[in-house]
Amino acid sequence: MIGGSVARAAKKNGLCSQVIGHGRHVDELDKAISLGVIDQYELDIASAVRDADLIIVAVPLGIMTSMFEQISGHAKKDAVISDVGSSKVSVISAATTAFGELPPGFVPGHPIAGTEKSGVEASFAELFEGRCCILTPVQSSAPWAVDKLTHFWEGIGSEVVAMEAQHHDEVLAATSHVPHVLAFALVDTLGQMHERKEIFKYAAGGFRDFTRIASSDPDMWRDICLSNSDAIKHVLHLFKVELESLEQAIDRKDGVAIENVLQRAKNLRDSYVVKEAV
Amino acid sequence: MIGGSVARAAKKNGLCSQVIGHGRHVDELDKAISLGVIDQYELDIASAVRDADLIIVAVPLGIMTSMFEQISGHAKKDAVISDVGSSKVSVISAATTAFGELPPGFVPGHPIAGTEKSGVEASFAELFEGRCCILTPVQSSAPWAVDKLTHFWEGIGSEVVAMEAQHHDEVLAATSHVPHVLAFALVDTLGQMHERKEIFKYAAGGFRDFTRIASSDPDMWRDICLSNSDAIKHVLHLFKVELESLEQAIDRKDGVAIENVLQRAKNLRDSYVVKEAV
Repeated sequence: MIGGSVARAAKKNGLCSQVIGHGRHVDELDKAISLGVIDQYELDIASAVRDADLIIVAVPLGIMTSMFEQISGHAKKDAVISDVGSSKVSVISAATTAFGELPPGFVPGHPIAGTEKSGVEASFAELFEGRCCILTPVQSSAPWAVDKLTHFWEGIGSEVVAMEAQHHDEVLAATSHVPHVLAFALVDTLGQMHERKEIFKYAAGGFRDFTRIASSDPDMWRDICLSNSDAIKHVLHLFKVELESLEQAIDRKDGVAIENVLQRAKNLRDSYVVKEAV
Repeated sequence: MIGGSVARAAKKNGLCSQVIGHGRHVDELDKAISLGVIDQYELDIASAVRDADLIIVAVPLGIMTSMFEQISGHAKKDAVISDVGSSKVSVISAATTAFGELPPGFVPGHPIAGTEKSGVEASFAELFEGRCCILTPVQSSAPWAVDKLTHFWEGIGSEVVAMEAQHHDEVLAATSHVPHVLAFALVDTLGQMHERKEIFKYAAGGFRDFTRIASSDPDMWRDICLSNSDAIKHVLHLFKVELESLEQAIDRKDGVAIENVLQRAKNLRDSYVVKEAV
């Protein structure tokens, strides 16, 4: 979905002469060709990357090392090598393992965009328009590579921001990883209650929105949980302290304390998130 | 918002000759008149309900007792008296306190529909179309009253289901109240982190959906937390056990255990919720 959307966006915005796909599933690759998402595909990574100016690795975090190992020694010296992974410290560590000395074109990236859907059929060229793309260049990243990648993401409509990988991982744990963990955990909890059929029957729009992210790809999210576990555990800890305090307020029927939390949350969400969405 | 939507829906579907509004804020009532939501209003409840065939009380749960007290002795003997409150045991208890002997026309109700918005301007006639409305008749509820109320909700497009008040409260704690508590608690947690500006800046669509319900009216939700605290605490307990177990799997890097939870949650959500939405 993300890889396909990058390809579609690059073509739509005239940023490339050719897109070569690589993937594990031939039927997905055939579909990508017939949808016009890629121009051709190679089942062998070495052949896929040989003449590439820009290599975007869009795979679950758990197979990043293996992907980089297969790219290593086959990419052009001035190729930009990037990714779209949701945790950056782990991607840098995977690249270090695979490449040994990191190539100057290696610049990790993460577009803050996505849906709960997977697969090339769910991809669309406009996914990144008006969204942020975070780059986390490392010491070895050459300025020309950072520039080229910045222009690429800006060319497909994103606002590019650079930050430390560690910082990225903390922010993403809060905005994305922990919400996913909570949604997955809640849906699984309800699924184990004996009223489960009714529960889902009487779920209104709020519940659908709240749990939409629990439809996300389990492989991808297992890998995110494993790759960014420290930051996730940190935010989960803060959340559990807050939840405990709200629960205690409910337990002692402390309406003022409950309302304080609810009002603060509403004010925050209305001021930051709603403004952003306009 | 809910009261206004009931009024709009009743008018749109030709179910009433006149809608009389009552409320605390004259400017909201004036707005309701100018929007055509109500035909007239009364600041005194006794006058508002005197000739009413159907009385729908749409107020935060905390002032239900006071509303019923003001209605008591002023409604017609064959008036149907209902509400739209999100917890039903507490509404029955409020009515018992206020009326002493419950009138035969008293039939508690709860439409499973809503948005995070408040106020008459956010109301719309189609809110209840295709949604469930749960009635929780009590022993004193007359069959003619249940029938009349059922026809009313069906007439504005809802599917009507009857169940025990206690059971309703457990199901709603799971599908609505606990999700709201989690969303409020998460947004408030993030608001206290020092990266808070960035956190909201880099929040993508999934986060917006997940936290939309944290924009809901704090007064209304404080009252729900207080009114349905036992069922909420029960579901929160189950959720915390599940979250703890998922967190431990993350901590010990147990990819299989993590994926099991994620896959079960995805399957459940896709099979129940998505089907429902189609």
